Amino acid sequence: MRTLKLTIAYDGTAYAGWQRQTNALAIQQVLEEAFAHLTGGVAPTVMGAGRTDAGVHALAQVASVRVDFDLAPIQVQRALNVRLPEDIRVMEVTEAAPEFHAQFHAIGKHYRYRMITGQVLAPHDRHTSWHTPWPLNVPAMQAAAVRLEGTHDFASFQAGGTSITDTVRTVDRLALTATGSELRLDAEGEGFLRHMVRIIAGTLVEVGMGQRSADSMPAVLAARRREAAGKTAPPQGLTLVSVRYD
Amino acid sequence: MRTLKLTIAYDGTAYAGWQRQTNALAIQQVLEEAFAHLTGGVAPTVMGAGRTDAGVHALAQVASVRVDFDLAPIQVQRALNVRLPEDIRVMEVTEAAPEFHAQFHAIGKHYRYRMITGQVLAPHDRHTSWHTPWPLNVPAMQAAAVRLEGTHDFASFQAGGTSITDTVRTVDRLALTATGSELRLDAEGEGFLRHMVRIIAGTLVEVGMGQRSADSMPAVLAARRREAAGKTAPPQGLTLVSVRYD
Repeated sequence: MRTLKLTIAYDGTAYAGWQRQTNALAIQQVLEEAFAHLTGGVAPTVMGAGRTDAGVHALAQVASVRVDFDLAPIQVQRALNVRLPEDIRVMEVTEAAPEFHAQFHAIGKHYRYRMITGQVLAPHDRHTSWHTPWPLNVPAMQAAAVRLEGTHDFASFQAGGTSITDTVRTVDRLALTATGSELRLDAEGEGFLRHMVRIIAGTLVEVGMGQRSADSMPAVLAARRREAAGKTAPPQGLTLVSVRYD
Repeated sequence: MRTLKLTIAYDGTAYAGWQRQTNALAIQQVLEEAFAHLTGGVAPTVMGAGRTDAGVHALAQVASVRVDFDLAPIQVQRALNVRLPEDIRVMEVTEAAPEFHAQFHAIGKHYRYRMITGQVLAPHDRHTSWHTPWPLNVPAMQAAAVRLEGTHDFASFQAGGTSITDTVRTVDRLALTATGSELRLDAEGEGFLRHMVRIIAGTLVEVGMGQRSADSMPAVLAARRREAAGKTAPPQGLTLVSVRYD
Protein backbone atom coordinates (compact mmCIF):
# COMPACT_ATOMS: atom_id res chain seq x y z
CA MET A 1 0.00 0.00 0.00
CA ARG A 2 1.10 3.55 -0.76
CA THR A 3 0.04 6.71 1.03
CA LEU A 4 -0.74 9.85 -0.94
CA LYS A 5 -0.90 13.36 0.47
CA LEU A 6 -3.56 15.53 -1.17
CA THR A 7 -3.85 19.30 -0.96
CA ILE A 8 -7.45 20.31 -1.61
CA ALA A 9 -9.19 23.65 -2.16
CA TYR A 10 -12.93 24.01 -1.94
CA ASP A 11 -15.77 26.47 -1.96
CA GLY A 12 -17.82 25.05 0.90
CA THR A 13 -21.03 26.93 0.02
CA ALA A 14 -22.85 23.93 -1.41
CA TYR A 15 -21.68 21.29 1.08
CA ALA A 16 -22.58 19.97 4.52
CA GLY A 17 -18.92 20.34 5.55
CA TRP A 18 -15.88 18.13 5.21
CA GLN A 19 -16.99 15.01 7.03
CA ARG A 20 -19.05 12.28 5.39
CA GLN A 21 -22.65 12.23 6.62
CA THR A 22 -25.65 10.03 6.04
CA ASN A 23 -28.18 12.69 5.08
CA ALA A 24 -26.27 15.46 3.29
CA LEU A 25 -23.45 15.78 0.78
CA ALA A 26 -20.00 16.26 2.31
CA ILE A 27 -16.72 17.14 0.58
CA GLN A 28 -15.07 13.95 1.90
CA GLN A 29 -17.78 11.86 0.22
CA VAL A 30 -17.39 13.63 -3.13
CA LEU A 31 -13.62 13.01 -3.01
CA GLU A 32 -14.05 9.38 -2.03
CA GLU A 33 -16.51 8.80 -4.87
CA ALA A 34 -14.04 10.37 -7.31
CA PHE A 35 -11.38 8.00 -5.96
CA ALA A 36 -13.68 5.01 -6.45
CA HIS A 37 -13.25 5.46 -10.22
CA LEU A 38 -9.50 4.91 -9.81
CA THR A 39 -9.76 1.94 -7.47
CA GLY A 40 -12.27 -0.18 -9.30
CA GLY A 41 -15.35 0.90 -7.40
CA VAL A 42 -14.22 0.55 -3.78
CA ALA A 43 -13.71 4.04 -2.35
CA PRO A 44 -10.75 4.40 0.03
CA THR A 45 -11.13 6.60 3.10
CA VAL A 46 -9.86 10.13 2.45
CA MET A 47 -8.72 11.34 5.86
CA GLY A 48 -8.74 15.13 6.24
CA ALA A 49 -6.49 17.16 8.56
CA GLY A 50 -9.53 18.88 10.03
CA ARG A 51 -13.30 18.76 9.78
CA THR A 52 -14.56 22.02 8.36
CA ASP A 53 -18.23 22.82 9.04
CA ALA A 54 -20.98 23.33 6.48
CA GLY A 55 -20.30 26.48 4.44
CA VAL A 56 -16.65 26.75 5.55
CA HIS A 57 -14.00 26.94 2.80
CA ALA A 58 -10.45 25.69 2.32
CA LEU A 59 -7.52 26.99 0.32
CA ALA A 60 -5.31 24.07 1.31
CA GLN A 61 -7.00 21.35 3.30
CA VAL A 62 -4.69 18.32 3.51
CA ALA A 63 -5.83 14.71 3.31
CA SER A 64 -4.13 11.33 3.36
CA VAL A 65 -5.32 8.27 1.51
CA ARG A 66 -3.98 4.71 1.26
CA VAL A 67 -4.13 3.16 -2.20
CA ASP A 68 -2.64 0.15 -3.96
CA PHE A 69 -2.74 1.27 -7.61
CA ASP A 70 0.44 2.52 -9.27
CA LEU A 71 -0.70 5.74 -10.94
CA ALA A 72 1.81 8.58 -10.59
CA PRO A 73 0.72 11.45 -8.29
CA ILE A 74 0.18 13.84 -11.23
CA GLN A 75 -2.06 11.24 -12.91
CA VAL A 76 -4.07 10.83 -9.73
CA GLN A 77 -4.49 14.61 -9.51
CA ARG A 78 -5.69 14.91 -13.10
CA ALA A 79 -8.04 11.92 -12.88
CA LEU A 80 -9.64 13.28 -9.71
CA ASN A 81 -10.06 16.80 -11.07
CA VAL A 82 -11.79 15.46 -14.19
CA ARG A 83 -14.37 13.76 -11.93
CA LEU A 84 -14.74 16.45 -9.29
CA PRO A 85 -17.18 19.36 -9.50
CA GLU A 86 -15.38 22.67 -10.05
CA ASP A 87 -16.04 23.83 -6.47
CA ILE A 88 -13.63 21.13 -5.24
CA ARG A 89 -10.11 20.97 -6.70
CA VAL A 90 -7.11 18.83 -5.89
CA MET A 91 -4.31 21.37 -6.01
CA GLU A 92 -1.47 18.90 -5.42
CA VAL A 93 -0.81 15.19 -4.90
CA THR A 94 2.48 13.94 -3.50
CA GLU A 95 3.84 10.58 -2.39
CA ALA A 96 3.94 10.42 1.42
CA ALA A 97 5.58 8.09 3.92
CA PRO A 98 3.41 4.96 4.29
CA GLU A 99 2.46 5.88 7.86
CA PHE A 100 1.54 9.50 7.06
CA HIS A 101 -1.81 10.52 8.57
CA ALA A 102 -3.16 13.96 7.64
CA GLN A 103 -4.97 14.45 10.93
CA PHE A 104 -2.65 12.90 13.53
CA HIS A 105 0.58 14.27 12.04
CA ALA A 106 -0.60 17.85 11.58
CA ILE A 107 1.37 20.20 13.83
CA GLY A 108 -0.35 23.45 13.00
CA LYS A 109 -3.31 25.03 11.25
CA HIS A 110 -4.01 28.46 9.89
CA TYR A 111 -7.60 29.67 9.70
CA ARG A 112 -8.79 33.01 8.42
CA TYR A 113 -12.10 34.68 9.26
CA ARG A 114 -13.27 37.59 7.06
CA MET A 115 -15.71 40.29 8.05
CA ILE A 116 -16.97 43.07 5.78
CA THR A 117 -18.14 46.35 7.27
CA GLY A 118 -20.14 49.03 5.44
CA GLN A 119 -23.91 49.28 5.02
CA VAL A 120 -24.25 47.04 1.94
CA LEU A 121 -22.45 43.75 1.28
CA ALA A 122 -21.03 43.61 -2.26
CA PRO A 123 -22.25 40.46 -4.07
CA HIS A 124 -18.76 39.02 -4.51
CA ASP A 125 -18.22 38.88 -0.76
CA ARG A 126 -21.51 37.17 0.07
CA HIS A 127 -20.21 33.58 0.26
CA THR A 128 -16.85 34.36 1.86
CA SER A 129 -17.50 36.84 4.63
CA TRP A 130 -19.69 37.82 7.54
CA HIS A 131 -21.42 41.14 6.91
CA THR A 132 -20.87 43.28 10.03
CA PRO A 133 -22.44 46.67 9.17
CA TRP A 134 -22.21 47.99 12.73
CA PRO A 135 -19.71 50.65 13.87
CA LEU A 136 -16.79 48.63 15.21
CA ASN A 137 -13.96 49.75 17.48
CA VAL A 138 -11.13 47.91 15.74
CA PRO A 139 -8.35 48.79 18.24
CA ALA A 140 -10.51 47.34 21.05
CA MET A 141 -11.00 44.15 18.99
CA GLN A 142 -7.26 43.93 18.41
CA ALA A 143 -6.57 44.37 22.12
CA ALA A 144 -9.04 41.56 22.89
CA ALA A 145 -7.38 39.30 20.30
CA VAL A 146 -3.99 39.79 21.96
CA ARG A 147 -5.46 38.61 25.29
CA LEU A 148 -6.57 35.35 23.68
CA GLU A 149 -3.16 34.52 22.23
CA GLY A 150 -1.07 31.93 24.03
CA THR A 151 -1.98 28.79 25.97
CA HIS A 152 -5.39 28.90 27.66
CA ASP A 153 -8.31 26.71 28.54
CA PHE A 154 -10.67 27.62 25.70
CA ALA A 155 -13.71 25.73 27.08
CA SER A 156 -15.81 28.92 26.76
CA PHE A 157 -14.94 28.99 23.04
CA GLN A 158 -16.03 25.44 22.25
CA ALA A 159 -19.36 24.55 20.62
CA GLY A 160 -21.97 23.39 23.11
CA GLY A 161 -22.64 19.66 23.28
CA THR A 162 -19.05 18.67 22.41
CA SER A 163 -17.63 15.73 24.34
CA ILE A 164 -13.99 16.90 24.28
CA THR A 165 -12.88 17.64 27.84
CA ASP A 166 -9.23 18.59 27.32
CA THR A 167 -9.92 22.12 26.15
CA VAL A 168 -6.48 23.67 26.65
CA ARG A 169 -5.11 24.94 23.35
CA THR A 170 -2.23 27.18 22.27
CA VAL A 171 -2.99 30.00 19.86
CA ASP A 172 0.32 31.14 18.38
CA ARG A 173 -1.14 34.05 16.47
CA LEU A 174 -4.48 35.82 16.55
CA ALA A 175 -4.14 38.92 14.40
CA LEU A 176 -6.95 41.24 13.31
CA THR A 177 -6.12 43.36 10.26
CA ALA A 178 -8.34 46.11 8.84
CA THR A 179 -8.02 46.99 5.14
CA GLY A 180 -10.71 49.26 3.73
CA SER A 181 -14.03 47.61 4.54
CA GLU A 182 -12.44 44.22 5.24
CA LEU A 183 -11.54 42.87 8.67
CA ARG A 184 -9.41 39.78 8.53
CA LEU A 185 -8.76 37.58 11.55
CA ASP A 186 -5.81 35.21 11.16
CA ALA A 187 -5.68 32.40 13.70
CA GLU A 188 -2.73 30.04 13.85
CA GLY A 189 -2.12 27.27 16.31
CA GLU A 190 -1.52 23.59 16.83
CA GLY A 191 -5.23 22.85 16.85
CA PHE A 192 -8.60 24.43 17.52
CA LEU A 193 -11.77 23.28 19.28
CA ARG A 194 -15.03 22.90 17.40
CA HIS A 195 -16.35 26.37 16.36
CA MET A 196 -13.47 28.00 18.28
CA VAL A 197 -12.39 30.44 15.56
CA ARG A 198 -16.01 31.37 14.81
CA ILE A 199 -16.79 31.95 18.51
CA ILE A 200 -13.64 34.07 18.83
CA ALA A 201 -14.75 36.12 15.78
CA GLY A 202 -18.25 36.56 17.23
CA THR A 203 -16.83 37.58 20.60
CA LEU A 204 -14.42 40.09 19.04
CA VAL A 205 -17.30 41.70 17.13
CA GLU A 206 -19.18 42.12 20.43
CA VAL A 207 -16.06 43.84 21.79
CA GLY A 208 -16.00 46.05 18.68
CA MET A 209 -19.64 47.00 19.29
CA GLY A 210 -18.87 47.98 22.89
CA GLN A 211 -20.94 45.15 24.40
CA ARG A 212 -17.81 43.70 26.06
CA SER A 213 -14.39 45.08 26.90
CA ALA A 214 -11.04 43.74 25.77
CA ASP A 215 -10.13 43.48 29.45
CA SER A 216 -12.99 41.04 30.03
CA MET A 217 -11.33 38.30 27.95
CA PRO A 218 -9.44 36.68 30.87
CA ALA A 219 -12.76 36.38 32.74
CA VAL A 220 -14.45 34.84 29.69
CA LEU A 221 -11.66 32.25 29.53
CA ALA A 222 -11.82 31.62 33.27
CA ALA A 223 -15.57 30.99 33.17
CA ARG A 224 -15.11 27.79 31.12
CA ARG A 225 -18.76 28.00 29.99
CA ARG A 226 -19.92 28.47 26.38
CA GLU A 227 -22.42 31.14 27.53
CA ALA A 228 -19.56 33.33 28.79
CA ALA A 229 -18.28 33.98 25.25
CA GLY A 230 -20.02 35.72 22.36
CA LYS A 231 -22.18 34.41 19.55
CA THR A 232 -20.80 31.98 16.97
CA ALA A 233 -19.97 33.91 13.79
CA PRO A 234 -21.53 32.42 10.62
CA PRO A 235 -19.57 29.71 8.76
CA GLN A 236 -19.12 31.37 5.35
CA GLY A 237 -16.53 33.84 6.74
CA LEU A 238 -14.15 31.01 7.66
CA THR A 239 -11.42 29.49 5.48
CA LEU A 240 -8.85 26.83 6.34
CA VAL A 241 -5.78 28.49 4.83
CA SER A 242 -3.13 25.83 5.44
CA VAL A 243 -2.04 22.85 7.53
CA ARG A 244 1.50 22.44 8.77
CA TYR A 245 3.53 19.22 9.04
CA ASP A 246 7.08 18.53 10.22
CA MET B 1 -39.96 64.03 -12.10
CA ARG B 2 -36.70 63.41 -10.26
CA THR B 3 -33.65 61.59 -11.56
CA LEU B 4 -31.77 59.20 -9.30
CA LYS B 5 -28.22 57.95 -9.87
CA LEU B 6 -27.70 54.34 -8.76
CA THR B 7 -24.37 52.62 -8.21
CA ILE B 8 -24.86 48.87 -8.58
CA ALA B 9 -22.62 45.86 -7.90
CA TYR B 10 -23.44 42.43 -9.27
CA ASP B 11 -22.19 38.93 -9.66
CA GLY B 12 -23.17 38.32 -13.28
CA THR B 13 -22.82 34.51 -13.10
CA ALA B 14 -26.55 33.79 -13.05
CA TYR B 15 -27.68 36.45 -15.54
CA ALA B 16 -27.98 36.94 -19.28
CA GLY B 17 -26.15 40.26 -18.93
CA TRP B 18 -27.26 43.78 -18.09
CA GLN B 19 -29.77 44.47 -20.83
CA ARG B 20 -33.39 43.38 -20.59
CA GLN B 21 -34.19 40.48 -22.94
CA THR B 22 -37.31 38.60 -23.87
CA ASN B 23 -36.09 35.06 -23.25
CA ALA B 24 -33.59 35.22 -20.36
CA LEU B 25 -33.22 37.05 -17.06
CA ALA B 26 -31.18 40.25 -17.22
CA ILE B 27 -29.93 42.43 -14.37
CA GLN B 28 -31.79 45.47 -15.73
CA GLN B 29 -35.07 43.54 -15.55
CA VAL B 30 -34.48 42.43 -11.96
CA LEU B 31 -33.78 46.04 -10.95
CA GLU B 32 -36.82 47.35 -12.81
CA GLU B 33 -39.05 44.77 -11.14
CA ALA B 34 -37.67 45.78 -7.72
CA PHE B 35 -38.47 49.41 -8.62
CA ALA B 36 -42.02 48.46 -9.59
CA HIS B 37 -42.75 47.82 -5.90
CA LEU B 38 -41.89 51.46 -5.15
CA THR B 39 -43.84 52.96 -8.03
CA GLY B 40 -47.14 51.16 -7.64
CA GLY B 41 -46.53 48.44 -10.17
CA VAL B 42 -45.27 50.38 -13.19
CA ALA B 43 -41.54 49.74 -13.57
CA PRO B 44 -39.49 52.75 -14.70
CA THR B 45 -36.63 52.20 -17.16
CA VAL B 46 -33.32 51.74 -15.36
CA MET B 47 -30.74 53.04 -17.85
CA GLY B 48 -27.27 51.58 -17.36
CA ALA B 49 -23.98 53.24 -18.31
CA GLY B 50 -22.92 50.17 -20.26
CA ARG B 51 -24.33 46.84 -21.33
CA THR B 52 -22.34 44.09 -19.71
CA ASP B 53 -22.57 40.65 -21.36
CA ALA B 54 -23.84 37.44 -19.80
CA GLY B 55 -21.50 36.32 -17.02
CA VAL B 56 -19.73 39.69 -16.76
CA HIS B 57 -19.62 41.35 -13.33
CA ALA B 58 -19.75 44.90 -11.99
CA LEU B 59 -18.33 46.53 -8.89
CA ALA B 60 -19.87 49.91 -9.70
CA GLN B 61 -22.17 49.93 -12.71
CA VAL B 62 -24.03 53.25 -12.81
CA ALA B 63 -27.67 53.67 -13.81
CA SER B 64 -30.11 56.55 -14.03
CA VAL B 65 -33.82 56.32 -13.41
CA ARG B 66 -36.62 58.89 -13.51
CA VAL B 67 -39.19 58.62 -10.74
CA ASP B 68 -41.97 60.77 -9.29
CA PHE B 69 -42.21 59.43 -5.74
CA ASP B 70 -40.64 61.36 -2.89
CA LEU B 71 -38.69 58.69 -1.01
CA ALA B 72 -35.24 59.82 0.12
CA PRO B 73 -32.29 58.21 -1.72
CA ILE B 74 -31.33 56.12 1.31
CA GLN B 75 -34.90 54.80 1.57
CA VAL B 76 -34.86 53.89 -2.13
CA GLN B 77 -31.58 52.04 -1.64
CA ARG B 78 -32.89 50.07 1.34
CA ALA B 79 -36.21 49.25 -0.31
CA LEU B 80 -34.47 47.98 -3.45
CA ASN B 81 -31.93 45.87 -1.55
CA VAL B 82 -34.72 44.21 0.43
CA ARG B 83 -36.30 43.10 -2.86
CA LEU B 84 -33.16 42.27 -4.82
CA PRO B 85 -31.44 38.88 -4.78
CA GLU B 86 -28.10 39.00 -2.96
CA ASP B 87 -26.11 38.76 -6.21
CA ILE B 88 -27.30 42.26 -7.12
CA ARG B 89 -26.81 45.11 -4.64
CA VAL B 90 -27.48 48.82 -4.89
CA MET B 91 -24.36 50.25 -3.27
CA GLU B 92 -25.44 53.90 -3.42
CA VAL B 93 -28.35 56.10 -4.51
CA THR B 94 -27.95 59.84 -4.97
CA GLU B 95 -30.11 62.65 -6.29
CA ALA B 96 -28.96 63.64 -9.79
CA ALA B 97 -29.67 66.60 -12.07
CA PRO B 98 -33.03 66.04 -13.82
CA GLU B 99 -31.34 65.61 -17.21
CA PHE B 100 -28.68 63.14 -15.96
CA HIS B 101 -28.36 60.09 -18.23
CA ALA B 102 -26.04 57.29 -17.08
CA GLN B 103 -25.08 56.22 -20.60
CA PHE B 104 -24.85 59.49 -22.55
CA HIS B 105 -23.10 61.47 -19.80
CA ALA B 106 -20.44 58.87 -18.98
CA ILE B 107 -16.98 60.18 -19.87
CA GLY B 108 -14.93 57.13 -18.94
CA LYS B 109 -15.07 53.49 -17.96
CA HIS B 110 -12.70 51.18 -16.17
CA TYR B 111 -12.86 47.45 -16.90
CA ARG B 112 -10.71 44.75 -15.38
CA TYR B 113 -10.01 41.33 -16.89
CA ARG B 114 -8.55 38.62 -14.61
CA MET B 115 -6.60 35.59 -15.73
CA ILE B 116 -5.31 32.83 -13.44
CA THR B 117 -2.27 30.82 -14.45
CA GLY B 118 -1.16 27.55 -12.86
CA GLN B 119 -2.29 24.03 -13.65
CA VAL B 120 -5.39 23.94 -11.47
CA LEU B 121 -7.95 26.71 -10.99
CA ALA B 122 -8.78 27.24 -7.31
CA PRO B 123 -12.57 27.02 -6.75
CA HIS B 124 -12.88 30.61 -5.51
CA ASP B 125 -11.58 31.99 -8.80
CA ARG B 126 -13.88 29.95 -11.04
CA HIS B 127 -16.59 32.58 -11.57
CA THR B 128 -14.29 35.62 -11.76
CA SER B 129 -11.37 34.65 -13.96
CA TRP B 130 -10.23 32.95 -17.14
CA HIS B 131 -8.06 29.93 -16.40
CA THR B 132 -4.95 30.25 -18.59
CA PRO B 133 -2.74 27.29 -17.58
CA TRP B 134 -0.31 27.76 -20.46
CA PRO B 135 3.24 29.15 -20.05
CA LEU B 136 2.82 32.87 -20.78
CA ASN B 137 5.47 35.43 -21.68
CA VAL B 138 4.19 38.29 -19.55
CA PRO B 139 6.69 40.96 -20.72
CA ALA B 140 5.64 40.25 -24.35
CA MET B 141 1.98 40.64 -23.35
CA GLN B 142 2.79 43.91 -21.61
CA ALA B 143 4.64 45.17 -24.70
CA ALA B 144 1.61 44.30 -26.85
CA ALA B 145 -0.73 46.11 -24.43
CA VAL B 146 1.36 49.29 -24.71
CA ARG B 147 0.93 49.19 -28.49
CA LEU B 148 -2.85 49.19 -28.13
CA GLU B 149 -2.95 52.22 -25.85
CA GLY B 150 -3.98 55.53 -27.41
CA THR B 151 -6.43 56.44 -30.17
CA HIS B 152 -6.86 53.73 -32.82
CA ASP B 153 -9.47 52.23 -35.08
CA PHE B 154 -10.37 49.12 -33.06
CA ALA B 155 -12.56 47.50 -35.75
CA SER B 156 -10.50 44.28 -35.44
CA PHE B 157 -11.39 44.18 -31.74
CA GLN B 158 -15.16 44.49 -32.17
CA ALA B 159 -17.55 41.52 -31.94
CA GLY B 160 -18.59 40.22 -35.35
CA GLY B 161 -22.05 41.22 -36.55
CA THR B 162 -22.08 44.57 -34.79
CA SER B 163 -23.59 47.47 -36.73
CA ILE B 164 -21.41 50.20 -35.22
CA THR B 165 -19.21 51.69 -37.95
CA ASP B 166 -17.36 54.42 -36.07
CA THR B 167 -14.83 52.13 -34.45
CA VAL B 168 -12.21 54.66 -33.42
CA ARG B 169 -11.72 54.63 -29.65
CA THR B 170 -9.18 56.04 -27.22
CA VAL B 171 -7.71 53.69 -24.64
CA ASP B 172 -6.12 55.82 -21.94
CA ARG B 173 -4.67 52.92 -20.02
CA LEU B 174 -4.12 49.25 -20.80
CA ALA B 175 -1.99 47.81 -18.03
CA LEU B 176 -1.21 44.15 -17.44
CA THR B 177 -0.07 43.35 -13.89
CA ALA B 178 1.18 39.95 -12.71
CA THR B 179 0.85 39.05 -9.01
CA GLY B 180 1.52 35.44 -8.11
CA SER B 181 -0.73 33.34 -10.33
CA GLU B 182 -3.00 36.28 -11.18
CA LEU B 183 -2.76 38.39 -14.34
CA ARG B 184 -4.86 41.51 -14.19
CA LEU B 185 -5.60 43.63 -17.24
CA ASP B 186 -6.88 47.12 -16.44
CA ALA B 187 -8.49 48.94 -19.36
CA GLU B 188 -9.58 52.55 -19.03
CA GLY B 189 -11.02 54.77 -21.71
CA GLU B 190 -13.91 56.92 -22.79
CA GLY B 191 -15.75 53.93 -24.21
CA PHE B 192 -15.23 50.44 -25.59
CA LEU B 193 -16.69 48.48 -28.50
CA ARG B 194 -18.70 45.33 -27.95
CA HIS B 195 -16.39 42.52 -26.64
CA MET B 196 -13.39 44.83 -27.11
CA VAL B 197 -11.77 44.21 -23.71
CA ARG B 198 -12.35 40.45 -24.01
CA ILE B 199 -10.87 40.35 -27.53
CA ILE B 200 -7.88 42.35 -26.31
CA ALA B 201 -7.43 39.86 -23.44
CA GLY B 202 -7.69 36.90 -25.83
CA THR B 203 -5.19 38.49 -28.21
CA LEU B 204 -2.72 39.27 -25.42
CA VAL B 205 -2.84 35.63 -24.26
CA GLU B 206 -1.99 34.53 -27.82
CA VAL B 207 0.99 36.91 -27.65
CA GLY B 208 1.93 35.38 -24.28
CA MET B 209 1.82 31.89 -25.83
CA GLY B 210 4.13 32.99 -28.65
CA GLN B 211 1.46 32.64 -31.36
CA ARG B 212 1.73 36.36 -32.16
CA SER B 213 4.34 39.01 -31.49
CA ALA B 214 3.86 42.28 -29.65
CA ASP B 215 5.13 44.01 -32.78
CA SER B 216 2.24 42.60 -34.80
CA MET B 217 -0.34 44.71 -32.95
CA PRO B 218 -0.21 47.69 -35.38
CA ALA B 219 -0.92 45.28 -38.27
CA VAL B 220 -3.84 43.74 -36.36
CA LEU B 221 -5.29 47.22 -35.85
CA ALA B 222 -4.67 48.18 -39.49
CA ALA B 223 -6.49 45.07 -40.77
CA ARG B 224 -9.85 46.33 -39.45
CA ARG B 225 -11.19 42.76 -39.57
CA ARG B 226 -12.36 40.72 -36.56
CA GLU B 227 -10.42 37.68 -37.82
CA ALA B 228 -7.14 39.60 -37.56
CA ALA B 229 -7.32 39.70 -33.76
CA GLY B 230 -7.30 36.80 -31.29
CA LYS B 231 -10.09 34.81 -29.72
CA THR B 232 -12.65 36.43 -27.45
CA ALA B 233 -11.73 35.69 -23.83
CA PRO B 234 -14.61 34.19 -21.78
CA PRO B 235 -16.98 36.60 -20.03
CA GLN B 236 -16.50 35.58 -16.40
CA GLY B 237 -13.03 37.19 -16.24
CA LEU B 238 -14.46 40.65 -16.92
CA THR B 239 -15.64 43.19 -14.36
CA LEU B 240 -16.89 46.75 -14.90
CA VAL B 241 -14.95 48.46 -12.11
CA SER B 242 -16.23 52.04 -12.39
CA VAL B 243 -17.83 54.66 -14.61
CA ARG B 244 -16.65 58.26 -14.67
CA TYR B 245 -18.77 61.42 -14.99
CA ASP B 246 -17.88 65.12 -15.03
